[in-house]
Amino acid sequence: MNDRYQTLTSLPAVLRGGDYNPDQWLDRPDILEQDIRLMHEAGVNTATLGVFSWTAYERADGEYDFAWLKERMDALYAAGICTELATPSGAKPNWLAKANPEIRRVQVDGRRDKQGRRHNHCYSSPVYRRKVAQLLERLCDAVGDHPGLIAWHLSNELGGACHCPLCAERFRTWLRRRYHNDIDEVNKAWWTGFWSHIYTDFDQIDPPFDNGEQSVNGLLLDWRRFTTWNAADYLDTEIEVLRRRTPNIPLTTNFMSYYPGFDYHVLAQKLDFVSWDAYPQWGEPGHDDTDVAIRTAFEHALIRGCKPGRPFLLMECTPSLVNWHAYNKLKRPGVNRLAGLQAVACGADGVQYFQWRAGRGGVEQFHGAVVGHDGRSDHRVFRDVTALNEDLGRLAGVCGSYTQAGAALLFDWDSRWALEDAWGFQKQDKKLRECAVRLYAGLNRHGVDVEVLGPEAGWETYPLVVLPMLYLTKPGFAQRLDAYVRSGGVAVATYMLGYVGPTTLAHLGGFPGEGLKDLFGVTAREIDTLYPQDQNAAIWGDGANTPIVDYCELLELADDTEVLARYADDFYEGTPAVTRRAVGRGAAYYIGARLDAVGDERVLCRALRDAGLPDELLPDGIEYHCRRNGTERWHFYLNTAEKPRRVRLPAGVEALTGRPVGGEEELSALGAAVVREGR
Amino acid sequence: MNDRYQTLTSLPAVLRGGDYNPDQWLDRPDILEQDIRLMHEAGVNTATLGVFSWTAYERADGEYDFAWLKERMDALYAAGICTELATPSGAKPNWLAKANPEIRRVQVDGRRDKQGRRHNHCYSSPVYRRKVAQLLERLCDAVGDHPGLIAWHLSNELGGACHCPLCAERFRTWLRRRYHNDIDEVNKAWWTGFWSHIYTDFDQIDPPFDNGEQSVNGLLLDWRRFTTWNAADYLDTEIEVLRRRTPNIPLTTNFMSYYPGFDYHVLAQKLDFVSWDAYPQWGEPGHDDTDVAIRTAFEHALIRGCKPGRPFLLMECTPSLVNWHAYNKLKRPGVNRLAGLQAVACGADGVQYFQWRAGRGGVEQFHGAVVGHDGRSDHRVFRDVTALNEDLGRLAGVCGSYTQAGAALLFDWDSRWALEDAWGFQKQDKKLRECAVRLYAGLNRHGVDVEVLGPEAGWETYPLVVLPMLYLTKPGFAQRLDAYVRSGGVAVATYMLGYVGPTTLAHLGGFPGEGLKDLFGVTAREIDTLYPQDQNAAIWGDGANTPIVDYCELLELADDTEVLARYADDFYEGTPAVTRRAVGRGAAYYIGARLDAVGDERVLCRALRDAGLPDELLPDGIEYHCRRNGTERWHFYLNTAEKPRRVRLPAGVEALTGRPVGGEEELSALGAAVVREGR
Amino acid sequence: MNDRYQTLTSLPAVLRGGDYNPDQWLDRPDILEQDIRLMHEAGVNTATLGVFSWTAYERADGEYDFAWLKERMDALYAAGICTELATPSGAKPNWLAKANPEIRRVQVDGRRDKQGRRHNHCYSSPVYRRKVAQLLERLCDAVGDHPGLIAWHLSNELGGACHCPLCAERFRTWLRRRYHNDIDEVNKAWWTGFWSHIYTDFDQIDPPFDNGEQSVNGLLLDWRRFTTWNAADYLDTEIEVLRRRTPNIPLTTNFMSYYPGFDYHVLAQKLDFVSWDAYPQWGEPGHDDTDVAIRTAFEHALIRGCKPGRPFLLMECTPSLVNWHAYNKLKRPGVNRLAGLQAVACGADGVQYFQWRAGRGGVEQFHGAVVGHDGRSDHRVFRDVTALNEDLGRLAGVCGSYTQAGAALLFDWDSRWALEDAWGFQKQDKKLRECAVRLYAGLNRHGVDVEVLGPEAGWETYPLVVLPMLYLTKPGFAQRLDAYVRSGGVAVATYMLGYVGPTTLAHLGGFPGEGLKDLFGVTAREIDTLYPQDQNAAIWGDGANTPIVDYCELLELADDTEVLARYADDFYEGTPAVTRRAVGRGAAYYIGARLDAVGDERVLCRALRDAGLPDELLPDGIEYHCRRNGTERWHFYLNTAEKPRRVRLPAGVEALTGRPVGGEEELSALGAAVVREGR
Repeated sequence: MNDRYQTLTSLPAVLRGGDYNPDQWLDRPDILEQDIRLMHEAGVNTATLGVFSWTAYERADGEYDFAWLKERMDALYAAGICTELATPSGAKPNWLAKANPEIRRVQVDGRRDKQGRRHNHCYSSPVYRRKVAQLLERLCDAVGDHPGLIAWHLSNELGGACHCPLCAERFRTWLRRRYHNDIDEVNKAWWTGFWSHIYTDFDQIDPPFDNGEQSVNGLLLDWRRFTTWNAADYLDTEIEVLRRRTPNIPLTTNFMSYYPGFDYHVLAQKLDFVSWDAYPQWGEPGHDDTDVAIRTAFEHALIRGCKPGRPFLLMECTPSLVNWHAYNKLKRPGVNRLAGLQAVACGADGVQYFQWRAGRGGVEQFHGAVVGHDGRSDHRVFRDVTALNEDLGRLAGVCGSYTQAGAALLFDWDSRWALEDAWGFQKQDKKLRECAVRLYAGLNRHGVDVEVLGPEAGWETYPLVVLPMLYLTKPGFAQRLDAYVRSGGVAVATYMLGYVGPTTLAHLGGFPGEGLKDLFGVTAREIDTLYPQDQNAAIWGDGANTPIVDYCELLELADDTEVLARYADDFYEGTPAVTRRAVGRGAAYYIGARLDAVGDERVLCRALRDAGLPDELLPDGIEYHCRRNGTERWHFYLNTAEKPRRVRLPAGVEALTGRPVGGEEELSALGAAVVREGR
Repeated sequence: MNDRYQTLTSLPAVLRGGDYNPDQWLDRPDILEQDIRLMHEAGVNTATLGVFSWTAYERADGEYDFAWLKERMDALYAAGICTELATPSGAKPNWLAKANPEIRRVQVDGRRDKQGRRHNHCYSSPVYRRKVAQLLERLCDAVGDHPGLIAWHLSNELGGACHCPLCAERFRTWLRRRYHNDIDEVNKAWWTGFWSHIYTDFDQIDPPFDNGEQSVNGLLLDWRRFTTWNAADYLDTEIEVLRRRTPNIPLTTNFMSYYPGFDYHVLAQKLDFVSWDAYPQWGEPGHDDTDVAIRTAFEHALIRGCKPGRPFLLMECTPSLVNWHAYNKLKRPGVNRLAGLQAVACGADGVQYFQWRAGRGGVEQFHGAVVGHDGRSDHRVFRDVTALNEDLGRLAGVCGSYTQAGAALLFDWDSRWALEDAWGFQKQDKKLRECAVRLYAGLNRHGVDVEVLGPEAGWETYPLVVLPMLYLTKPGFAQRLDAYVRSGGVAVATYMLGYVGPTTLAHLGGFPGEGLKDLFGVTAREIDTLYPQDQNAAIWGDGANTPIVDYCELLELADDTEVLARYADDFYEGTPAVTRRAVGRGAAYYIGARLDAVGDERVLCRALRDAGLPDELLPDGIEYHCRRNGTERWHFYLNTAEKPRRVRLPAGVEALTGRPVGGEEELSALGAAVVREGR
Repeated sequence: MNDRYQTLTSLPAVLRGGDYNPDQWLDRPDILEQDIRLMHEAGVNTATLGVFSWTAYERADGEYDFAWLKERMDALYAAGICTELATPSGAKPNWLAKANPEIRRVQVDGRRDKQGRRHNHCYSSPVYRRKVAQLLERLCDAVGDHPGLIAWHLSNELGGACHCPLCAERFRTWLRRRYHNDIDEVNKAWWTGFWSHIYTDFDQIDPPFDNGEQSVNGLLLDWRRFTTWNAADYLDTEIEVLRRRTPNIPLTTNFMSYYPGFDYHVLAQKLDFVSWDAYPQWGEPGHDDTDVAIRTAFEHALIRGCKPGRPFLLMECTPSLVNWHAYNKLKRPGVNRLAGLQAVACGADGVQYFQWRAGRGGVEQFHGAVVGHDGRSDHRVFRDVTALNEDLGRLAGVCGSYTQAGAALLFDWDSRWALEDAWGFQKQDKKLRECAVRLYAGLNRHGVDVEVLGPEAGWETYPLVVLPMLYLTKPGFAQRLDAYVRSGGVAVATYMLGYVGPTTLAHLGGFPGEGLKDLFGVTAREIDTLYPQDQNAAIWGDGANTPIVDYCELLELADDTEVLARYADDFYEGTPAVTRRAVGRGAAYYIGARLDAVGDERVLCRALRDAGLPDELLPDGIEYHCRRNGTERWHFYLNTAEKPRRVRLPAGVEALTGRPVGGEEELSALGAAVVREGR
């Protein structure tokens, strides 16, 4: 790993740039020249090259051409623009795919892909790995020592799973290793006695094809784990070359927010810093900007938490609209700026776009770009980007600082996968994401920034830890949580805590399992799933009443468990819905039903006090984040509301304007203040 | 067939038990022991073993192990619990499926299944049949003479169709036999001149693949018939062994309510008694319990009617929730009891659950169970089951009695299939089920229990016969119906009567065909299908007005046909919608449009009077069923309403309480009274 | 081409008949005889035979039988009924399909069809082409010189695409020809640098399988073009025989209204006249008859414009209902007559039905037919058809006349396809059809009949030309349009004009491209797509306000561009939405947002005045069409409203009644007047 840089890369500034495909324009030197000029005008300091350039590098097997790349990197560098260089493995050349069917993915329906699209190669294929490695060697030969090269961008939006015979065999090998070559260990872990699905040899195990095994949840979960492992193993092929040839260049790859396909906690371990592509659906009817913003903030935190302690990069966002929504609405004025500042507020040290210049053809031709088909810089979008880049230029000081969180929220891909695959409850969508976002938002409204961490990470350092629907728990976790609370920690858990263990076997003896029911002083005897048309309510100690939807656990309490709210309706009317148990020096809250934001707020408010955190609310629509670097703190106040809001700022310097501040100020709609304190 | 038992089995009691999978817990003797103890506590007298135990019996080809089974049956029997033993053919071992691709089903898309899931073997496969037969021989060796064995449960929820070459060839052979080896008889029966689909050799006929022939309705219908035949033929493989080895043990298999895949009238002929799995969606918004209950009662009657004159078994229901609904709601208190009593009321001699104990893994791990993952008997669900079992213990006297129906309702799988596959009308869903349930419910509201019979059965013994959407009629049926009415029977038919003959050829000369138009004095000149947004109304002789939806036939009447209602709207305003014709000593009603319950009621009320049946209504929400055994009658009054209802009971003994009754009493919400009369 | 006939065929009358399948009834001579009698009674003068008769002609390879056909043609001719004879290639015999898998289509998912259904042969297959040609030779031998034969009906509803290896290879050959055997010309045209999809050999190009290349829009468009070319090439196989053997018999085939699969402008070049099958969804809730009628009128014009200057034939419509809608409603009384007269009003010289007599089996058994399963002529449908036929008999004089249009509307399959495949905007449905129909309707309300033409056709002869969403423009078009306007023409274009060129490459330098932005004085800087829940409005010069949905282009205007309306809302409030620019002696209107009918009306009204066309509105619901033959004009006034309407008729003779008219008259609901003027 590369830790020499305080900042993401060797560039001592917030990264400002985006995907740039000059290889599509090599016959238009006028446009290539214009690009440099316009990048300068826009305040760009980095460009991401080569994302899909394999065929431009290698038009025939072994015939390489990197001259155009070097020329472009030279020209950019001469203009003060560095290069993040992608490895081009995100899409494969036609000639390679035709000659080597094995590199084309076999989908879940058993059909091998024809050539086309992207992100659909087999991660296992020796041919693919070899060809990529060969190309990377030559790429390093060509530009590995280029002074403008500041980072490697590994492939692009890694994703998906291949079900080919090579992958199936690797899956079996992985299982053999995991289960000590003992097929009965698998049978036990997966409960294969169910429906007579006992395996008597590892050779009998297939990937979960759509017309194959879909009823063994342990298999489904292990397949997902293997898929992550195999992608990481593939990445090692690329990393081996790059680390050896360019040991000083940091590595990243672009994650995809709440993507279900991989455990990003695992993948991130391969990287020097994480980055991701954010495409929130601003302006979607029924969701106001405040909702969209906080959901995005949660996603920033989710990705940031994959590499705790290091800033991340917003690798892609659109300067305007996308082309793949059902309705592709323009970003309204001010939104791009707010979103860009939010990224930095949440820990990003760079804001980059897909894409610099709109291509003329292909399905993304009408995706937003900094420079449109008209090539003009007197364009609303170009000007918005330029203005934000100016703002970002003023925030160079944040580089290398990290989020100062007041609480941790636990999120686990294994648990998520187990929950998503479970039959029962709300079968299609258990709404874990919504549950987590609401708790995240609830804390943010108190000005508490939240670190999203895996259960294995070191969340004990936070005074408050939130556990939304942590359905799967692994051995040792309950003991850690218990010790945490006893020593003064505050835990807030929701329904569906600890139902199953690491291979999806249901815990015996009552939920939450493994001793968690003792810690929370709560046993969930039954869980009632409501239809969308149904509703219940929580009645709180003061008589207040807040709605309940989706899930109601029927709780049995320990003697020393305090009831915070009871059900208002149904045959379990009057029984506990929300509880608190004082344990040692800490407290354990249990939310047994899906509350709304007001209900959550009632729990969080008290939990915050227990944890010694601020329980005062920020004005509606004000989102708050904080980054710290030694004694210096950067406070970000974002007004996501449609109206101006007054907010009390800490004493310091407002970094975008250079003004000293302190006390109450008005933030315009979509406006922001960044207060540097304590340098 | 086995007719020695008055009751279903040798057990002189209402069967109380459920699916039990001790093979999943063989490494937990504590739990196996606990099971026996809890079964005793719950009042269980039978357990269904071995439903998916093939691999537990035979982990490698020819290596059998039934020791664990015998041990479990011994232990159960020692505790007074009998065994219904399943044949384990509902799911196949991985080792067998891997070694013999032919046993895996080919789906309608032409893809052969990978191994996995269940109920997906090929019924034609000689390998599968041989392996099952071999295993059953050894199973009989092991426990065929076990004193606790009271019934064979053949496979599980038989269903589906295989499109493999073996099945295709058997289909062609079946067709050759059916059509006297004369391909032009097929062409004529299927009207293959349409779209040039004339066959010139049986070898040209394929199963109806999704990318194959879907336009020849006669083929579609014969394929469904063949599918039933082939499954029955497969069953014979199992039956041959069991009848030979255990001639005294009755055979059943579990049907699936309104399942479209097989003609249960045919399959039932293989069985000693029928059983089924009932999973009504209690608590679904928009359907109150009364609706759900009567729909379930119809399904009880549908299955019961597959084996007229013999009680049936409720093989599976859930004690609480299921895991495969979109929203898996708990059964409310009282519902399980009401549903269990309803089953007995409708002719069941047993109420069994899926499942006794919740498994730890697999897709059904969160399906309801009598014993949950906590293993506790102080559980609402366990207690509810126990209480119902106590009630059922008091009803031992009903065993062997049969429903005393006042009317017959004709239901034919061939007609249903022809209607479902027809292009026209409401293309996706003609709503035959709804039509039949509404008429069934209309009669029940008068306290008239209804026998659901195939058109070939002996429905002439009932004074009233109802024909909902009997779209396909077979030669001789019209004559039988005519004779029935002339000799005093009352027939009530609806729209879409007699449109096509046995191979789906439209009748010529006017609908309903084959003389039925003369019997009813009605010709349906056209049929208008309304959009869901459209509505018409029926105007009755007294000026009353009831809504009409979905279908309006334009009727031409014979001179002696009486008009009961006319259309209120559209270009056929004022023309007849509902008619009655007095024929001989009987009467023939024709409902030409889809009425609501109030409209149906107007017809049924008069038809009941014609038939000499009670025309008085029961209180809203009260469902009535009656079983008779010689001179003894058991009257069941079920209150499906959310409120108490007063109901007049016949004189006799209330069997659940032992109280003498007679006269009006109040039934609590979800309450029931069972009055034994005339012993 | 055959141009000897002023009328479509040698029959000097409006064609009145329909699809007739006597081969399904050869064992029922009584019915065959009844058919002739009933056709006579119904006023039928032509029957379409042999549409799916291949197997009836050739039951085994090379064994032909046309005796039954000749006998039927003889019998019909003796009764004064001519024959349109179909080539039977719309469905293939089972024996042929089984013996030659290559003739069965490979679908987009890569699966080769099993045998079954229809319209699913491979257009490339040499076997299929040879077998069809052989059969046609023999068919010509048998009846090529039959005096009753008046037209060839080529195959039936040609459609779809095959993805088999033969088609893939022909596609590559076609591409080689189109792109001068230069793969880099393809790369440039398709912008394959995007996602590394550069081809280095034509052999690497596949059809766009669903699991293959879907991201190269140029490929998608060329595949659609190839598909049309290949079908036309297939048609040549049939045409070669028929032209050679029966040079005097005109050729047609039946198009399918707004069918997406083929470019009908190309296919029509193969035909002597065009015909089509109209199945509007009369009575659909939410669409009143006026809407349905004008949409149908647009489709008449779309098909008519495929063969400008020649009348067309309505080959199929239903006399009553269809069988493939979700809800199959009866045609209300009067609708069939109005629809038939509308067809003639729009340029049809014949109104024919699918089908004459309802078949007994197959998926179309319940499709409407002139003669139903009851075989009775005292039937509402039969009587309606007969009455219309009588009306049509009175309109023989229109035969050979052509629509007198006041304006042209440009419609291009290439542009439509490029738009439909584009990612962006409203991704699923850009609603080109709705946009075009609304403008068509807007002109018709002024009594201006509209000719729908391809951009290559001679639209300059019309004083007004309308360009709805002409997204793709080809070289030279902009210059033509510019010259047209300068010399006095009036052009009305909408949003999304000229975004891409002939291979879907986005125009550079601003939209609309290729100089169109100079002509209209408008540059569309951005396009905002609204969600269905969103709305904006246009504020007009007089302060009036009309709604805007779906699309808002942000316009930059030239100095001399006049603003007609501005946006009322959103961040572009107050900017131009609708403009007009006076150019030379003409004017160029640009509609930058999706207006409603009232908004369109405001633009059209002024454009009509600019063009010297009538700007007065017809009464609501009155549809107007005009046909001219030399000095004679036929004015059709159709009342599509549910109520009577008063309308001012020109002086002349009302042809249906023979009455002299002139001045205002009342048309009953669904009534029509046909005024012959100036003979």
